[in-house]
Amino acid sequence: MPATERTVFIISDGTGITAETFSHSVLSQFESVTFRQVRVPFIDSVEKADSVVQRINRCAADQGNPPIVFTTLVNPDVLGRVRLANALFLDLFGAFVEPLEHHLGMKSSHSIGKSHKAVSSTQYRNRIEAINFSLAHDDGQFVSGLAQADVILIGVSRCGKTPTSLYLAMQYGVKAANFPLIPEDFDRGALPSTLMPYRTKLFGLTIQPERLMEVRHERRPDSLYASLPQCRHEVAEAERLMRRESIPMLSTTTKSIEEISTTVLQEVGLDRHSAY
Amino acid sequence: MPATERTVFIISDGTGITAETFSHSVLSQFESVTFRQVRVPFIDSVEKADSVVQRINRCAADQGNPPIVFTTLVNPDVLGRVRLANALFLDLFGAFVEPLEHHLGMKSSHSIGKSHKAVSSTQYRNRIEAINFSLAHDDGQFVSGLAQADVILIGVSRCGKTPTSLYLAMQYGVKAANFPLIPEDFDRGALPSTLMPYRTKLFGLTIQPERLMEVRHERRPDSLYASLPQCRHEVAEAERLMRRESIPMLSTTTKSIEEISTTVLQEVGLDRHSAY
Repeated sequence: MPATERTVFIISDGTGITAETFSHSVLSQFESVTFRQVRVPFIDSVEKADSVVQRINRCAADQGNPPIVFTTLVNPDVLGRVRLANALFLDLFGAFVEPLEHHLGMKSSHSIGKSHKAVSSTQYRNRIEAINFSLAHDDGQFVSGLAQADVILIGVSRCGKTPTSLYLAMQYGVKAANFPLIPEDFDRGALPSTLMPYRTKLFGLTIQPERLMEVRHERRPDSLYASLPQCRHEVAEAERLMRRESIPMLSTTTKSIEEISTTVLQEVGLDRHSAY
Repeated sequence: MPATERTVFIISDGTGITAETFSHSVLSQFESVTFRQVRVPFIDSVEKADSVVQRINRCAADQGNPPIVFTTLVNPDVLGRVRLANALFLDLFGAFVEPLEHHLGMKSSHSIGKSHKAVSSTQYRNRIEAINFSLAHDDGQFVSGLAQADVILIGVSRCGKTPTSLYLAMQYGVKAANFPLIPEDFDRGALPSTLMPYRTKLFGLTIQPERLMEVRHERRPDSLYASLPQCRHEVAEAERLMRRESIPMLSTTTKSIEEISTTVLQEVGLDRHSAY
């Protein structure tokens, strides 16, 4: 294995998804190295820990390099075993629990798999309910439920409304409907009348016509719908309409669904606990 | 503010979503404290940093307690300014970048907002494509595309197939279709024939009948569909069918979509880079 490739184990007593995402963003600071991430979830016993140690050691021997290990293990016995392996250990919990204990003047509970466990919690149920809501209110379906929406994303077809709605629901339990702006709306020069009662919930997404053309071509190759003139016309008309109606607007062209969602939450005032 | 409530700022030059999720799981180790999380994204200039310092200091003064601050700031100038605030600082990047630099024998690039930036990357496009796929192949629609599926979740109506499919797509770019098992299948005592060519991609979800009843009642109150005998019958028949066909199966009753998705990835052999 060349020096520019390294194996990374993410070892967790839960899913390890958060640690995996976090480790990915830390490791992206080392651009010249290719990291191969191996997520090892549900390590909640000494026996499983011992088997992980074998995997790590086999990897170290094969590659001639100790791998990098991110752990979020809470149980000290399990963590102690894993630490016997030949690796660079980065203990995500250990690094922060101790300063927090000192700051808060109390001991941590050292309990396992807290983060996603509370399936019966209100917060978790809200997420599932929001996913169902966003699915049912995708692309202007079931307009009768729009009164319950936290936000209604509008924009031309294929500008990024659906993935953003689903992300907002899944990550934040936000009931995000979405509603297309179509050529008929531009001919009339007005927002769909269905949306008028919900003016304050509207958030506009827009996109560069060239990028829109690419996205539409994937769906309907060589159609009028995907042609550059049509994309230019629709985007220009949609932006004009949204500007005239003073609807906040964001271009999705170079933004991820995480970035779009974050901006939507800020602009629509849905970020939680924003007293400060 | 009582001693059992604390304000937590998550300060990032990107969205801060990963840091928010991570901080939530660390803080869940202090069960007797209620934490109010304030995510402050896109802090990418000294001017924005100074305004955050004011927010933190106002919070500290109001509450008589320095707040807790998780940061993932990469730019040393911006981080330096934020550190002037009156707070407990937990520097997620700083804690791990230095040991990694030492281990890898190189300096980090100190570049900002890497993690979600690469909208044009193959990985990001795969996620968006997978979301579209999972939406199009929800609930047995468009069976013609099943050959492209990475996994096909099966189970009775409302057992958790749809949110799991969408999560797998959104988080991992996995093309997850889902297909319902319905009373007609149980009468015939066989899997839907549409699925037969894709036996190796099938993964079964099941659920406790009592929980299924609750979920179905929310959708169609007081229907036969939501009645306990009907739920018991469908779950028993679905489990019998899946066992007989040796399809891997998981109960979703007490599991989050993250936990279900992690198990699906493991069982279907879709975890990436699993050489070790």
